[in-house]
Parts: sequence; C-alpha cells; structure tokens
Amino acid sequence: MVYRVGLLGLGTVGTGVVQMLQQPQHPLLQAVEIAAVGVRSLDKPRQVRIPPERLTTNLEQIVSDPEIDGVIELMGGLEPARSLILKAIDHGKSVITANKAVIARYGEEIFQAAAQAGVAVLLEAAVGGGIPIVQALQHSLRASRIQAVWGIVNGTTNFILSQMAQQGSSFAEALAQAQARGYAEADPSADVEGWDAADKIAILAGLAFGVSVPREAIPCEGIRNISPTDIRYAREWGYTFKLLAIAQRVVAQGSETVLDVRVHPTLLPVTHPLANVHGVDNAVWVQGDPLGQVVLAGPGAGQGPTASAVVGDLLTLRAHLQTGAYLPNPLWGFFGRAAALLPLTELESEFYVRVLAQDQPGVMGAIGTCFGRHRVSLESITQKECHQEQAEIVILTHTVREADCRQALAEIQQLPQVAAIPSLFRVLR
Amino acid sequence: MVYRVGLLGLGTVGTGVVQMLQQPQHPLLQAVEIAAVGVRSLDKPRQVRIPPERLTTNLEQIVSDPEIDGVIELMGGLEPARSLILKAIDHGKSVITANKAVIARYGEEIFQAAAQAGVAVLLEAAVGGGIPIVQALQHSLRASRIQAVWGIVNGTTNFILSQMAQQGSSFAEALAQAQARGYAEADPSADVEGWDAADKIAILAGLAFGVSVPREAIPCEGIRNISPTDIRYAREWGYTFKLLAIAQRVVAQGSETVLDVRVHPTLLPVTHPLANVHGVDNAVWVQGDPLGQVVLAGPGAGQGPTASAVVGDLLTLRAHLQTGAYLPNPLWGFFGRAAALLPLTELESEFYVRVLAQDQPGVMGAIGTCFGRHRVSLESITQKECHQEQAEIVILTHTVREADCRQALAEIQQLPQVAAIPSLFRVLR
Repeated sequence: MVYRVGLLGLGTVGTGVVQMLQQPQHPLLQAVEIAAVGVRSLDKPRQVRIPPERLTTNLEQIVSDPEIDGVIELMGGLEPARSLILKAIDHGKSVITANKAVIARYGEEIFQAAAQAGVAVLLEAAVGGGIPIVQALQHSLRASRIQAVWGIVNGTTNFILSQMAQQGSSFAEALAQAQARGYAEADPSADVEGWDAADKIAILAGLAFGVSVPREAIPCEGIRNISPTDIRYAREWGYTFKLLAIAQRVVAQGSETVLDVRVHPTLLPVTHPLANVHGVDNAVWVQGDPLGQVVLAGPGAGQGPTASAVVGDLLTLRAHLQTGAYLPNPLWGFFGRAAALLPLTELESEFYVRVLAQDQPGVMGAIGTCFGRHRVSLESITQKECHQEQAEIVILTHTVREADCRQALAEIQQLPQVAAIPSLFRVLR
Repeated sequence: MVYRVGLLGLGTVGTGVVQMLQQPQHPLLQAVEIAAVGVRSLDKPRQVRIPPERLTTNLEQIVSDPEIDGVIELMGGLEPARSLILKAIDHGKSVITANKAVIARYGEEIFQAAAQAGVAVLLEAAVGGGIPIVQALQHSLRASRIQAVWGIVNGTTNFILSQMAQQGSSFAEALAQAQARGYAEADPSADVEGWDAADKIAILAGLAFGVSVPREAIPCEGIRNISPTDIRYAREWGYTFKLLAIAQRVVAQGSETVLDVRVHPTLLPVTHPLANVHGVDNAVWVQGDPLGQVVLAGPGAGQGPTASAVVGDLLTLRAHLQTGAYLPNPLWGFFGRAAALLPLTELESEFYVRVLAQDQPGVMGAIGTCFGRHRVSLESITQKECHQEQAEIVILTHTVREADCRQALAEIQQLPQVAAIPSLFRVLR
C-alpha cells in the first residue's frame, strides 16, 4: 500500500526531499507518493516537477485531508508550523519534521498530542543534518546512562571560528565570508548569538535524559566577542575556540534530574575529538556509562544531508507500518517531565580571562590578589604583548565557581591600573 | 509482560550485559528477565549473581525452551554458535548477537531463516562495539545511496599502529604492549592479520549495499610488515598508517552490484577524519549521495561499550514488541543476493613503495624506467637514508592499476642494483 504524504514547504530541503523520492532507483519510489505540497506561492519557478494540481497554498487542507497518511513539515519558524503539526496529529497523521525551533519549544505539547493520537513524530533532520544522532540517542545509546552530550551543532558559527583560526581574520571578516558563501543569513543573529544551537541542545538533552528542557532558561552566549587575539593566545596553550552546546547531568540529591545545559564559546583542548571538526561540519560527543565516549560527525545542514535525514525518517516510518504495528514505537516519544537547570552562578568551570592594564610593576600582583580574595585559584597569569604602555594579561584559572570568578573580575575592573577586561571565556577539558 | 531472555555465554560481555540489566534504575529492569544463562562450567566464579537454577551447561535446551522469548548469543566462534542461533530462530525466538564471525559467514542463511520464522536478528554489538553504526546504516543513512564505507574496526591493530607512530616502537614491541594491556590475545593472528576487520567489513558492506559479501573472497593483508621506517617516511609526506577495512561501489555495467571490498594497511592523509582515531578506538566513515560524509567514532570493543550495544538491541526489540507488531522490522533483515567483488588486480590505487638499492648513479633512473614501461606514473621518487652503501628509495605513485604496479616491481626486483623491496602499501586520499 502506497503511503501518501503531504509536504509543507518546498524550499531548499523540501526540494531535496522530492528529488530523492523521484530518483528512479530509490527504495521508496513505489512506496511513497507525494500527494500534496503546501507552498506560499504557486507561481514560483521550481527545480522539481510536481503536478500542478498537487501544489496548494492551503496548508490547513493538507493536514486535515483524510487521503493523506503523513505530513512532512519543512517550513521552519514557530507559527503556523506548530499549529499545523498539532492539527495533522489531531487528524491521525504521523509527522516528520526538521523544525528544531518548534520542537525545542513545543516538543512536550507535540509529543503528548502524538501519544494521545497514537501517531509518530520523527525529527532526525532537526539536529545535525545528516548525522544520525537522533535515532542513536533514541535506540542504541539509550541502554547506557548518558552523562553528557556536547555538540558543535551550528555550522555557520563553526565555519566562522574555523576561518578566524586558520586565516587570523576578525569576526566581521569571517562573517562576511560566511554570508558570501551562503552559510550565514543577512541577519545572522540566530546563528551567531547561539540561539539555533540552544534549540538543538534542548532537543538533544530531551533525547539523552528523557526530560523536557525549558528552552528559554538555557544560558546562551554567542561568538561576536571572540577576537583573533584570543584565538592566538588560546592556541599557544593548546586550545581551540568552539561554540559548544552542552548538556550534562549534575549530581543531585533526591530523584530530581538536574541538568547543566548551556551554549557558549569554549576553549577546548586541540586533542579533544570536537576540536578537529572544521568548517560547516557538525559533531556530537556523547559520554555514557558503561558506553564510554562516542562521537558522530558530519554535515550539519544543507539540502542533501537534511533531505537524507528526512527521507530516512520516512523509511523508518514506512518500515514500522509494514510490521503490522498499531502503536507508534515507544522509543520515539521522548519528552518527559521538565528538568531543573543549574544556574550559571553555581557552575564550576575553568576560565580564560584577558585583561588590559598599565604596563607597570605590581599589576599582576594586584590582579592575583583580587582573584585570591574570591577563592579563584589560578593556573597561570601571563603578561603577553604590550602596546602604547598597555599590557595584555591573560589568566587561566583552575576549576572555580563562576560566581566567584565574576565577583573577582568586578573588583579587578575597579583597580586603577586596569583599563578593561575584554574577554572572559570558559575552558573545558 | 516481561520478556524472558536466554543468555548464551557469560564471559566479559555477557557479564557486562547482566550487570547493566541488574542496575536498580535501568529502564529494562522490570521489563526483561534473564531466565537462563548457558555456560561452559557451572563452578567458575562469577562477578554477577545469577540464581544457580538458571545457570546451565545445556545450551541446546535454552534455545528450544518454549518459556524463553529471545536469545542473546555472546559465545563467539563459529560452532556451536551458528547452530544454536539457527535453532533458536527455528523455535521462534528473536536473536541478539555480537558474533561478527558467524554473521560475516552465515549471515544470509541466518537472515533467511529469521525471515521465514518471522523473528528478528539484531547485531549492533557485532561491529564497532558501542558505536551505533549498525542501526545508522539500517535506518537513517539508508535513505541515501551509499558509495563507500571505510572503517577502523579493529582496536588491537589501531592500538599497535598508534604506539608505533607515537613511540617509534617496532611492531613486535607494540604487540607486546598490546598483549600486556589485554588488548591482544596470546595468538594475535585474527587481529593483526586483518581477519577480524574482514568479518566486520563484510557485515558493514552487507548493511550499506544490501548485498551478501562472500567473506572468504575479501582480500586481506595484516600489519606485520609495517616498519617504524615506513611510518616515519609516511609522516614526512603527511600520511599516517591505518589498518582500513574498505567497502565501496564500483561503477559497473548493468544492474549487478560490484563492490571493492578489502582490508589492508593504508597510508591516509593526516587530515582525513579517520587519521585522528587513536588507540583502541574504532571509527566508521560513510559517504553517500546526497548524504555527504559522516563519521561515527568511539570504543570499538570492551565490556561496557559492547554490553551497551547488546542492551540497546534489547531495548529496540522490546519497544518493537510493545507496538503490537506481528512482523519483524523489514529494515533489520539486511542480506541480499551475493555481490561480485572487484579482483585486486583490477584495483586502481596510489602506492607507497620502499626499495633498498646500491647507492650509485643511475639507480633512480633504472627504477623510474621500469615503472614507466608498465604505465605506472610516479608522483615522487626520493632517496632517503643511506646505510653501508645501501640507499633507501621511497616512491609514491599516482593512481595506477595494481597489476601494473606489481609487474613493474617484479622487474625492479631483478635489477642488479636492487637488493630488496621491503614495503608496498596502498595510499588513500
């Protein structure tokens, strides 16, 4: 029996999905029919051939059409995507989506609706493009107790940081290069501020820990403040800058799951598996017990990889239906009760700090004394270059409470010899 | 309803599986019961507590016991493992196995029997330990047309090569270190000759290309002949030695699937994702269209990772049963008709050759002329060190037919100035 799908959105990824399903040798060629495609404009030129009677601007009709078995949502954005997904579920249709923004914010609502309706929601394409991280966390890796998931889950920022590291360019120059290549949008905020990465780590944390992560509560810092100077100094110590999305268990009293979830630029040792992920590639590092450490890496976005993940979900769904199953696979519905998030002030981390101060005796001592007063123990404090009587002092701390470090810095800022503290970044090993 | 499993084998991995399932918070704690454990000796001290009445040396009884729903086979070896798996299937039991040797040789027979009996055979643990490569190839990645799968799938040899590269040690020294750490067996042949890797690439090729690969036809070279000298020279050119297991499509006339499948030491550019997999870790690199390139890396063996993969299959199986399915998932049964393998003589590759010759004028010319006569075009021919009037000449070829290269070398061997050709390795980019 042919599975009839409705496609919402015929942009880059939607076009890629249609191209895959129309390939003469594709395993789903006879099994799946693209019965309707919802678009914004009927007149736009298309790179794929869709019979005109199947193109419609009436997306509501697609999700309520009893002739349609499942819906693939590739519109992006929050609304009307969320409402259409919920309506499709309400009409008994399984949904495949690449929409990380909707799943990160309304995942619990959507999965509860799907559970009630007895349909599936699949989302391999929502995180990591072609990297099969979603199914891995739902199935094989789930047998272990996952302790941590760290990801480079935004290709745009990884491209920018790779360019800065390899060519010594500034953030603005590297951003312009990313825009010229089509990797960054005209308004790059969602990428460079880390919001896209925060959407994705909310989903990965949900999968890995079986909880619902409040998206708006995830601390999120972007990469605009990283300078070529910081990248150079970090490299001298054997570190590279990556925008990491982090989710890990915090040892907690009682049965409550407390998670440390955050997105920020991070100094990572060059020997770490994630440090060698360059350009627009993505990678996710998972640590579990007794699993150990596993890394999945590959193209995190783009037409082909993302379409491949969507069609992979379609294969999975089709295979499921062929088994005679009348319930969706219980491993697919992943959101549980809301997790408590560790406040950043309670975070313990190592820090990299760059201070601009007058080049005169006693400065390093004064800075060191301030740190000491706030129980911030230092690994090193080094005077680097000197311009126009201003010295650049770089500090690496041991593992300390973030609140203590910030209090020390507030005090250091007040020292008469200190001009500015342009950089404060977390270090992970 | 509790799923009652029979465990065949209580060695390292079996013990790990029992430990996982006995953890107080494990999701399968209430869902799965270890109803019987087949062992060789009842008296051996065990690290896990099994009620004595569930231990038995009668493995035949376990696979035919109507009270047992599924069987986990962790004995290893060909027989009696193969017969027990087939008997379990015959009695309507699904099977989870970590036995790459059996699946690589009898996969087709076993999957056909399973299809007839309507049961599942799951094998995540058979390749790559905790790396979720099997499910990825069965599901997400399957939507794309896979072109190539390259793997570092044997931890022992990767440890030996890493030691040789990092410490300059000889093969024999590195092997002794591997044995001292428990990474290599007293008779290390299955690892160092590449046989274990060949088992695994036969399975990965079966998954990736939907065919059955004749295990005995896979060309297989081990790592015994790699010298510290070769490793040093390779590094000077930007290459590292890895024991690669390779499976890739060959462009062929007609509809027949022709595969290039082989296992051998390979010079890999240090920038390749597989070049940075060190120690006992494994990694699999997959290239597909329109997927692009994906790498999965992690612990390829060991109690925890392998047990995690086995229990992951148990979770998958249990979830499947909860859906009301009366057929196994069609994506699980993977062997198709037998593939034709490309003979090595027809292979086109780049080569690294090391020649020992007299240190006198004209030698490089004579060698170059021989290569030229056999249409072997060279990228470089370099005289390296010189000991006792003997010169070491290292050659890198362009992409040439292997048969041509070997004929040229047979002729070079006959040159009066040439003492020996100690090294011939393939180069991949």
